[in-house]
Amino acid sequence: MEQQFLAWLKTRLAHQSEVVAGIGDDCAVIHNPPDSSHVVSTDVIVDLVHFDVSKHSPHMIGRKALAVNLSDIAAMGATPGYAVVSLIIPMGWNLIQVQELYEGLLQLASEFNTEIIGGDFNRHDGPLTISVTIMGHQTPDALKYRNTALVGDDIYVTGPLGGSILGHHLQFTPRIETGLELSLHPSVHAMTDITDGLVIDLHSMLNAKQGALLFADSIPLRSEIKEDSDALPRALYDGEDFELLFTASPQFTPADLTSNNHHDIYKIGVIQQDEGISLKDSTPNITKLSLHGYEH
Amino acid sequence: MEQQFLAWLKTRLAHQSEVVAGIGDDCAVIHNPPDSSHVVSTDVIVDLVHFDVSKHSPHMIGRKALAVNLSDIAAMGATPGYAVVSLIIPMGWNLIQVQELYEGLLQLASEFNTEIIGGDFNRHDGPLTISVTIMGHQTPDALKYRNTALVGDDIYVTGPLGGSILGHHLQFTPRIETGLELSLHPSVHAMTDITDGLVIDLHSMLNAKQGALLFADSIPLRSEIKEDSDALPRALYDGEDFELLFTASPQFTPADLTSNNHHDIYKIGVIQQDEGISLKDSTPNITKLSLHGYEH
Repeated sequence: MEQQFLAWLKTRLAHQSEVVAGIGDDCAVIHNPPDSSHVVSTDVIVDLVHFDVSKHSPHMIGRKALAVNLSDIAAMGATPGYAVVSLIIPMGWNLIQVQELYEGLLQLASEFNTEIIGGDFNRHDGPLTISVTIMGHQTPDALKYRNTALVGDDIYVTGPLGGSILGHHLQFTPRIETGLELSLHPSVHAMTDITDGLVIDLHSMLNAKQGALLFADSIPLRSEIKEDSDALPRALYDGEDFELLFTASPQFTPADLTSNNHHDIYKIGVIQQDEGISLKDSTPNITKLSLHGYEH
Repeated sequence: MEQQFLAWLKTRLAHQSEVVAGIGDDCAVIHNPPDSSHVVSTDVIVDLVHFDVSKHSPHMIGRKALAVNLSDIAAMGATPGYAVVSLIIPMGWNLIQVQELYEGLLQLASEFNTEIIGGDFNRHDGPLTISVTIMGHQTPDALKYRNTALVGDDIYVTGPLGGSILGHHLQFTPRIETGLELSLHPSVHAMTDITDGLVIDLHSMLNAKQGALLFADSIPLRSEIKEDSDALPRALYDGEDFELLFTASPQFTPADLTSNNHHDIYKIGVIQQDEGISLKDSTPNITKLSLHGYEH
């Protein structure tokens, strides 16, 4: 099957302008845009950890494999450029299934101008595994890092949280466009994407002697879980939301962004000097949040 | 185990000069050397396909995961720079084993000045799987491509072939140094590395209306198989030799290289106009070689 798949892939991937030698040579070659830094990220998704082949279509799975990587590029405020894709396919799969998976991935790649420039193909007696490494670029000054928040910053998210497992994790739109807009704002100080859960990922943004206060009533809840009694803890801990989580000085207002993007930006808290993460509810009690998070 | 492993890895990977944000942020950031092209390659190795955890130490397996990728960089005549490493670890493995595996990889990385700048870690109910994506650089003019041989070129390999499965595939030295020396020679026209087997990989170098004639007596045989009756077919088809296979105009002589490298360069044939690959033996009969190769 490998030969058939690679032959199909060769015709499927159109000729690529900036890339001198693509699939077929020992390496892909990229001519660098001048004055840019490269950003690189890699993520693997595995059956029964990040998806379930008995429930999800190959198309959706392939799409997710690239989407989680695009989300990392968005979290840097960078533009995606190239990706390499390695498939490790269970013995029982046929060519049609592999092609369907790849089509899901290619469709998203095309939406975000990401060229697939190489990869590897293996079969094994184990779960479907897809490894993607993505490369993007951005001018050094515009990159947004995770650990550069300042005390007094407001904390924002780009969409409702919680219950992603009910479907969002397979369908989300990587926040590339919003990430690029935010990269142009000097008042935006730090950024990441929510993968492990709001509390855990927010904690990963804090430096020594920094803490955060979250406002319970301001945390946007995904519509599918809104009416559930555990909606708030799910928004805090579920993970795989793939929304951007960023901090900005009080001068920043979501209305600075174009209309497409600013509607879905929610101010949910502030960076403060106390360590740890606390939650203020409407009573108004303040409770310290535990750092246990979402386990896949 | 993931948290323990990542904490260990953070201390294990020293601060890296050119890389602004390494492990811990959403992406690693690389400042590009000016006037260079980037080369990118990815390879996955899987238990029972490329190694056997019941026979091979984690250290050797980790080493191989990087070595096969370095070999792709060597085959372009490029300098390795950065790699991202994704581990998919079987449930039964413990932290010590994972660290041992990573140490094998890091030791080779340090020999070839390759910085590990990111990765991913997963556990699953399946075989040990390691995915590495490697990035290197070279000035555009010095890169050596696979499909740029000319009729009349001599064909060379950088070491003896066949029987790699007996041990070489876990211990080989990626031919980075030789690849870089060859990249400086304008008379070297095309290059790849032998992974699938001499005949298959040589075939992948040929363009339409190009063929190759190999000289049976000139093909260097690995010492472990030299006395075997099937030594020549093994050298032709076994694969995983990870030697460079290159073509050069008749002006080229191995003595052009520094003494370290030129001893192990063997002229094994010529590029000609006939299609297909033929073998000339001492009788002197010429037989057409089949293109079936090494199957893992």
